[in-house]
Amino acid sequence: MINQSLLNPKSIVVIGGSNDIKKPGGKILKNIIDGSFKGELFVVNQKETSVQGITCQRSVNELGNIDLAILSIPARFCPEIMHTLADDKETRAFIILSAGFAEAGDEGKQLETEIVDIVNSVNACLIGPNCIGVLNANYRGVFTSPTPPLEPQGCDLISSSGSTAVFIMEAGIPLGLKFSSVFSVGNSAQVGVEEVLEYMDLNHDPLMHSGIKLLYLESVSDPKKLLKHASSLIKKGVRIAAIKAGSTKAGSRAAASHTGALTNSDVVVRALFRKAGIVYCSSREELLSVASVFNYKELKGKNIAVITHAGGSAVMLTDSLSAGGLLVPAIEGPDADKLLSFLHPGSSVGNPIDFLATGTAEQLGIIIDYCEQKFDQIDAMVVVFGSPGLFDVANVYNVLSEKLEVCSKPIFPVLPSVINARREIQGFLETGHINFPDEVVLGRALVAIYNTPAPQTIDEPEQAVDFNRIRKIIDSASDGFLSPEEVAALLDGTGIPRVTEHTITRASNVGHQFDCYLAS
Amino acid sequence: MINQSLLNPKSIVVIGGSNDIKKPGGKILKNIIDGSFKGELFVVNQKETSVQGITCQRSVNELGNIDLAILSIPARFCPEIMHTLADDKETRAFIILSAGFAEAGDEGKQLETEIVDIVNSVNACLIGPNCIGVLNANYRGVFTSPTPPLEPQGCDLISSSGSTAVFIMEAGIPLGLKFSSVFSVGNSAQVGVEEVLEYMDLNHDPLMHSGIKLLYLESVSDPKKLLKHASSLIKKGVRIAAIKAGSTKAGSRAAASHTGALTNSDVVVRALFRKAGIVYCSSREELLSVASVFNYKELKGKNIAVITHAGGSAVMLTDSLSAGGLLVPAIEGPDADKLLSFLHPGSSVGNPIDFLATGTAEQLGIIIDYCEQKFDQIDAMVVVFGSPGLFDVANVYNVLSEKLEVCSKPIFPVLPSVINARREIQGFLETGHINFPDEVVLGRALVAIYNTPAPQTIDEPEQAVDFNRIRKIIDSASDGFLSPEEVAALLDGTGIPRVTEHTITRASNVGHQFDCYLAS
Repeated sequence: MINQSLLNPKSIVVIGGSNDIKKPGGKILKNIIDGSFKGELFVVNQKETSVQGITCQRSVNELGNIDLAILSIPARFCPEIMHTLADDKETRAFIILSAGFAEAGDEGKQLETEIVDIVNSVNACLIGPNCIGVLNANYRGVFTSPTPPLEPQGCDLISSSGSTAVFIMEAGIPLGLKFSSVFSVGNSAQVGVEEVLEYMDLNHDPLMHSGIKLLYLESVSDPKKLLKHASSLIKKGVRIAAIKAGSTKAGSRAAASHTGALTNSDVVVRALFRKAGIVYCSSREELLSVASVFNYKELKGKNIAVITHAGGSAVMLTDSLSAGGLLVPAIEGPDADKLLSFLHPGSSVGNPIDFLATGTAEQLGIIIDYCEQKFDQIDAMVVVFGSPGLFDVANVYNVLSEKLEVCSKPIFPVLPSVINARREIQGFLETGHINFPDEVVLGRALVAIYNTPAPQTIDEPEQAVDFNRIRKIIDSASDGFLSPEEVAALLDGTGIPRVTEHTITRASNVGHQFDCYLAS
Repeated sequence: MINQSLLNPKSIVVIGGSNDIKKPGGKILKNIIDGSFKGELFVVNQKETSVQGITCQRSVNELGNIDLAILSIPARFCPEIMHTLADDKETRAFIILSAGFAEAGDEGKQLETEIVDIVNSVNACLIGPNCIGVLNANYRGVFTSPTPPLEPQGCDLISSSGSTAVFIMEAGIPLGLKFSSVFSVGNSAQVGVEEVLEYMDLNHDPLMHSGIKLLYLESVSDPKKLLKHASSLIKKGVRIAAIKAGSTKAGSRAAASHTGALTNSDVVVRALFRKAGIVYCSSREELLSVASVFNYKELKGKNIAVITHAGGSAVMLTDSLSAGGLLVPAIEGPDADKLLSFLHPGSSVGNPIDFLATGTAEQLGIIIDYCEQKFDQIDAMVVVFGSPGLFDVANVYNVLSEKLEVCSKPIFPVLPSVINARREIQGFLETGHINFPDEVVLGRALVAIYNTPAPQTIDEPEQAVDFNRIRKIIDSASDGFLSPEEVAALLDGTGIPRVTEHTITRASNVGHQFDCYLAS
């Protein structure tokens, strides 16, 4: 299980480290070197004496003690080397990139059992096999690119699919999304998504660790663990969004073929997510837009002010918000009239607040101040501001950046001009903020988050199921039928709560029983 | 109404043309010049003698005859100049960029009526006011950027919102989407979205004109016209997708404030679109992904083969397809076994066809050939192929480009590695194809198209409503009740079809009447 040897190793060996950076063993070594790993770094390769500037050992026997071993060699060679590392070199963490284990048939399954036994025998940690690795502030232990700049408050990404983790990072980086760590659990031979989350929950420090967790799962193998630690983390202020792929019959067949995932009913998964407080997502895009919203201040009510110089986007956004239960309430009254006086003729403040194509940065600042300070009913703002390509809009985005720092209400920026204002958007992202290129994609993310309830309290001691009592009742029902009293006893025996019941056998009892009912 | 003076002018004058390209009058002139307009180009500007290298007139009186006038001057100056142009200069097309008309209050409304009267008095065409202009193969008459490279078979975009047209182009160009023309109708004083579509229908030439129309509307002011010409175009092989913004109560209030749109019930709009065969979209992203699908061969059945080296994307895609009624059917049998023999161990062909992270370009070619030639039940393919960043994938995308040319079944490419394979994706786009960066966004577009029925036949002569007969029946119902015969006569009078009815008054009639019923 996850330990400090994995998370903060003092020494790493790459078994199968290579000079060829087109191979996983070469690329992962390059990533670790480029990431300025501060501990000791070793390579084992039978065919080389030096790899990427690092003196190379022919065998693990030549090594001293090693915290973390990363294996990029054929599956059949893994067990022997892991034995040596576990028993003689005090290695307590392993990442196996190689495929050819449980996903590859019976022989691979046996190999996988073997390596898990080795790891468990010394109480060590195993990530994979068949994964892209682990990436955190201490080392870049993945064989893929891009390796995003890491920030303590970026997202933690835990994925049962390596390629999906890569595609999520690739789609997230251009939006301005930051990452804190990435765990690709591959076949989850020992550590699955649930176990990573468990560790994060049990060791959560809000000052040190990210408040955003993103999950990609193809099966929930331990729903109780997921529920317990997801809801616990969320109660600590962490926000979690997850894709559970394989939600349909065909998708679940696809997942079974991909990672050997067991079928989970989508209805059950959705119920589990709701109970835990996890935002359910169906695509990389949804996961990333929800994650982007998580990066802004929390939405605490349902009333949104839509602020724009582009009417069409405001209309589509308003549709998507109100179709999902959020409100774009009318804004009226003396303060609204006052605000209108600062804007160009033809502007409207009724919400959407449309300050026209000629609207200025200064006007945007005034509008945001009014929404922040005067319009008490407003809980959050969305600012849609693009460019027709006539002039630079950097001054507008500067105002937006400044207001994002000082306002207590959340402000979500939609900067749609990915061509006309490419440079200005880049400048905005460099101030540490995230862009939503499509207003409706943002609207749907806000709706998904708003409609996910807080985690249910599951702290009460679990009532034990009284199997003896249940067995006795069932055995006594020789004809297969139970009396109302027996049904009640059966429910009580399982701990299923029920409303108070009374059995009426005579009409004259009704009044009396009704009194009982009212009194109970 | 739309005419050749607008579409293919031999001469254009920009009234208010300026040296300042940060102003609409300056930028539109620059766009027309940069677009190498082949006719004569004039500028009227009271304050200049030469604008952007073009000799400038102080007044329209100094001009000869002009086909098209583009006005970028304050609204109040428009009527007089338009009078001169219409009456003395044979100008038969006007584009008014200026705001300050009907959207700006009563005075503006009066001005708008005035200019429409001028235009109608000489049977000319008016685009706008309050729009970004018109862009087609003959001239780039918009004041915004980007001006996409135009192709005869690119999309025709007709929008009642100028900024939305810009944002649609900005989001579409990076996907590889091409355009054929853009019409921004602004206030639709004379020509609205429906009128542009009507012109396109009445003049459609499949060899010359685009087969893809994209619409953005905030109200449907002439539903009959939209239905008639949209369904007529679709029967000619054109494909149409549209956003009707303002679908919710709040969104419709927003639309009213933006373009003065009247409220249309979303249920009615959706029914209208279904009847016409228009694919209903709710966001720019949906419109663009549907448009991208339109650019590929038509999907003629519901059975999709998902081909990938990245299992996670395949699972999410399969979910989105099958949730929407499309199928990812199992592929089995001797041909499937044969195909498997060409792939690396561990691959699966059961559909998704997963040829693993180590899958090659050659293998992709073989898989596509099998889906095209051997697997008769397969109607279309989606290929998901990204890059973990280890090696160049251009050879894979080359195979994909080649197969796109030769296969009769549609193939939709999902190339998600927008960072790792940026250069290779760019190369793929340069072969003229379009990319779908997110598999689920593609899946939902395919579903939306698949679930939009063919246009209903509306060619039969419309039955006239017999108002006299209806009035007579209603007037004769002094107590407010109608007999069954009168109800039937009322329905017949409106032309509402009904099943054959018989009134039974005596039990002994039942058998006889039942015989009648069977015979009728």
